[in-house]
Amino acid sequence: MEDIAPILDELVTANRILANEGVLDSFGHVSIRHPQKPDRFLLSRARAPELIQIEDIMEFTLDGRSVGQEPGKPYSERFIHGALYEARPDVGSVVHNHSPSVIPFSVTGRKMRPIMHMCAPIGSDIPNWEIRNKFGDKTNLLVTDMEMGRDFARCLGHRTVALMRGHGSTVVGRSVREVVFTSIYIEINAGLLIKSLSMGDVVYLSDGEIETIAKARAGFTFERGWESWCHRVGRPYVSREWSVGEGYSRSDG
Amino acid sequence: MEDIAPILDELVTANRILANEGVLDSFGHVSIRHPQKPDRFLLSRARAPELIQIEDIMEFTLDGRSVGQEPGKPYSERFIHGALYEARPDVGSVVHNHSPSVIPFSVTGRKMRPIMHMCAPIGSDIPNWEIRNKFGDKTNLLVTDMEMGRDFARCLGHRTVALMRGHGSTVVGRSVREVVFTSIYIEINAGLLIKSLSMGDVVYLSDGEIETIAKARAGFTFERGWESWCHRVGRPYVSREWSVGEGYSRSDG
Amino acid sequence: MEDIAPILDELVTANRILANEGVLDSFGHVSIRHPQKPDRFLLSRARAPELIQIEDIMEFTLDGRSVGQEPGKPYSERFIHGALYEARPDVGSVVHNHSPSVIPFSVTGRKMRPIMHMCAPIGSDIPNWEIRNKFGDKTNLLVTDMEMGRDFARCLGHRTVALMRGHGSTVVGRSVREVVFTSIYIEINAGLLIKSLSMGDVVYLSDGEIETIAKARAGFTFERGWESWCHRVGRPYVSREWSVGEGYSRSDG
Amino acid sequence: MEDIAPILDELVTANRILANEGVLDSFGHVSIRHPQKPDRFLLSRARAPELIQIEDIMEFTLDGRSVGQEPGKPYSERFIHGALYEARPDVGSVVHNHSPSVIPFSVTGRKMRPIMHMCAPIGSDIPNWEIRNKFGDKTNLLVTDMEMGRDFARCLGHRTVALMRGHGSTVVGRSVREVVFTSIYIEINAGLLIKSLSMGDVVYLSDGEIETIAKARAGFTFERGWESWCHRVGRPYVSREWSVGEGYSRSDG
Repeated sequence: MEDIAPILDELVTANRILANEGVLDSFGHVSIRHPQKPDRFLLSRARAPELIQIEDIMEFTLDGRSVGQEPGKPYSERFIHGALYEARPDVGSVVHNHSPSVIPFSVTGRKMRPIMHMCAPIGSDIPNWEIRNKFGDKTNLLVTDMEMGRDFARCLGHRTVALMRGHGSTVVGRSVREVVFTSIYIEINAGLLIKSLSMGDVVYLSDGEIETIAKARAGFTFERGWESWCHRVGRPYVSREWSVGEGYSRSDG
Repeated sequence: MEDIAPILDELVTANRILANEGVLDSFGHVSIRHPQKPDRFLLSRARAPELIQIEDIMEFTLDGRSVGQEPGKPYSERFIHGALYEARPDVGSVVHNHSPSVIPFSVTGRKMRPIMHMCAPIGSDIPNWEIRNKFGDKTNLLVTDMEMGRDFARCLGHRTVALMRGHGSTVVGRSVREVVFTSIYIEINAGLLIKSLSMGDVVYLSDGEIETIAKARAGFTFERGWESWCHRVGRPYVSREWSVGEGYSRSDG
Repeated sequence: MEDIAPILDELVTANRILANEGVLDSFGHVSIRHPQKPDRFLLSRARAPELIQIEDIMEFTLDGRSVGQEPGKPYSERFIHGALYEARPDVGSVVHNHSPSVIPFSVTGRKMRPIMHMCAPIGSDIPNWEIRNKFGDKTNLLVTDMEMGRDFARCLGHRTVALMRGHGSTVVGRSVREVVFTSIYIEINAGLLIKSLSMGDVVYLSDGEIETIAKARAGFTFERGWESWCHRVGRPYVSREWSVGEGYSRSDG
Repeated sequence: MEDIAPILDELVTANRILANEGVLDSFGHVSIRHPQKPDRFLLSRARAPELIQIEDIMEFTLDGRSVGQEPGKPYSERFIHGALYEARPDVGSVVHNHSPSVIPFSVTGRKMRPIMHMCAPIGSDIPNWEIRNKFGDKTNLLVTDMEMGRDFARCLGHRTVALMRGHGSTVVGRSVREVVFTSIYIEINAGLLIKSLSMGDVVYLSDGEIETIAKARAGFTFERGWESWCHRVGRPYVSREWSVGEGYSRSDG
């Protein structure tokens, strides 16, 4: 069986990157599906992302029970991750965050939509999960059991991002590098959009543009970002083979 | 009698953290009630929070007279702290700040209210102390004697935060870690709310949500933030025993 | 033939500066016209600007074919650079960026215009390239062949800056130092203008002011900025002879 | 005659602090009146403030002629400094800046007024110098001779701060520490005010409050800020004797 140490190392790096880029405060988290056991996922014990070490990573079943070593208390919101891996076989990595420019969209009627090409993969239809709809207005807003996790997974559906009212958002992707990339650029899109909305009517990416960009996004793009983000947090950059999207010259810039 | 050196060390760390997180400029301060003498509190001499050393910490009676060693001039606003410890036996720590996103709420009619789950403990009813009401419009806005301090304490009442018009805000908590946590997240809430207000009507946390979150907030949550904030300022992290709130899995994320 | 190593070194520095000053994210790029072969330009392989080394720099013909060593995949948008060097013999350096305060102007009807003297050289008439006009709304917004590059060059015309809708902007200049300077100050101008527009009607620089400043801008001004920006990224500052603009005392401050 | 080396050293520190605190970009400057020759002032050669060394400092007559050693080209706007020292015998130090939150007030009809106690010394009546009024709209906006400097000095009058349309602002004070303090807090006030204006009607400090604060501001306040700002730029903190304002306990916090 393949050694999963490089995968764990990449997960540590993802935590450090997302903290450094301002996507995760001390209370967000990122997980990956176990590379050998698709019914398991890997997620740190409950600790601030900028501090996570390889020893902090725990293994969970998809319904959120820890398996094997328990270096500490798990995140109470691990059910977000489990329910998404359960509902979406295509998902290989999940980020749950309190990304600061995104939250305002979750508490106002304004729709988050991509305005910049790098942000196209967030999609044109981003739902906002309102926990009150099913669980009333006496919750602490957290997703702390599988019933809640599955309700959130239904809200996300086949999409890449869903906001969570008064709380944050959750992003899914095929790989750690993709989900980190999307998480960073949704925060950037949100910041750009708040500024744009203050100035007048906004031209969003069209559905055709979003589709073209999403199809052509190459692994190479994720590598380019990943290398620089690793550098900023002093983590080694390990290159991955990258598949080229449709049309070699049509990757990001 | 217990050695209070660890307590003093924690107070130094709190000063460094709040400066680094942008809550305190060179002119805010944080105090703790004396762990052995409830009618005394501990507060640095008048110095910028990012520079405070253990030797700078002074002991005061609740009416603001210094006791024992005087390493330098005291803060002229120590009466805020004294009056709050006098009025509120439940309070173990006080932060007075000029937190930059909070001040705009003190000079406009806009009410500060929590919009994000992490910020719920600031409560739904945050008063704004108007010094002019009792002391006229020829003050320098500072709380420089016990009469002013007690007037402010009445305004705060049983709450966690009160704004001070054209000046800043003051936050109270049971412990240093709690008050640091609340101070950081009120600043975050204010920043999120300013952005949200620019985009339309805002959905605030409901009273039920605020109450549920406040009840379930566990010491564990404070530890998670504290560990990462210590790391950022190069201070050692000393873990504390933490009580678990109602419902183990219902802490912050 | 002159050694071009100092030129390559300056190009590396330009990349590092623009990344550090927040003008380039991991996906922008800066090029120079080859100092000895005006029908060639020099541009890094596709890599984040903050990481670029001298070994990453490639040579291209004006239609974007790489010549000589290929340390890696080229930027797919190298055609922006080629088409501009082709159309504008006066241009010695090109920056393509996703500068965060500039993008909002590309997706709203608000015109970018200079409001601060340092920003005058961006000019009073800044076009916004809409890729849909000629290439439809199913592109990925990128300039990935010469037809697109030439269309963009026509939009830019004789000007210094053109926005690109939902994408970023491109800046040209006679030298690397000039183009770096302009790129930094257009971002600053954009940030100032967004704030100003939120407060009411804005007094822009007049055409007379813009013209006077552009004529009097001395190489000395670029040196003053360049020296400090080098310092911030830990790159050596190599002074260049600077020509003085009209009126010695009329440089920037 | 007293050694002026400590004075020069303090001027270097002031440059470094104002660059680090975001008040000066690469193109602002700070001067002091010569401590022994009131008809002279000391100002660096034209160099970015974050790089200035003691060797860069030049001596000027009040009409802007350099005296003695010339380590390099002088700032073309040295006439701002000269004209203010000429017109205002009470002024011991001058900062000219492009402070980013202040500029928007210079290009819109919005008046800058203090909303926070720390910012009171900027005064309730802050003029905005419009260079077009006397010099037409074909200038480069810079103050490049004594006629312009004197016109600006008349606009400033007896006040502490004047804005300069499309350009920046200039701040005067009795000492370097005072002028640095005021420059930092006018930038803070501007940022707070822009946010506040986006939320509704604003309660400004009253004239009585401004007067009370300005009278009671003690040198001790400047020391508290100065010590922390020195620390941030790695410069030694040299304490100065500080006079106490009216009412010992009424300094800043």
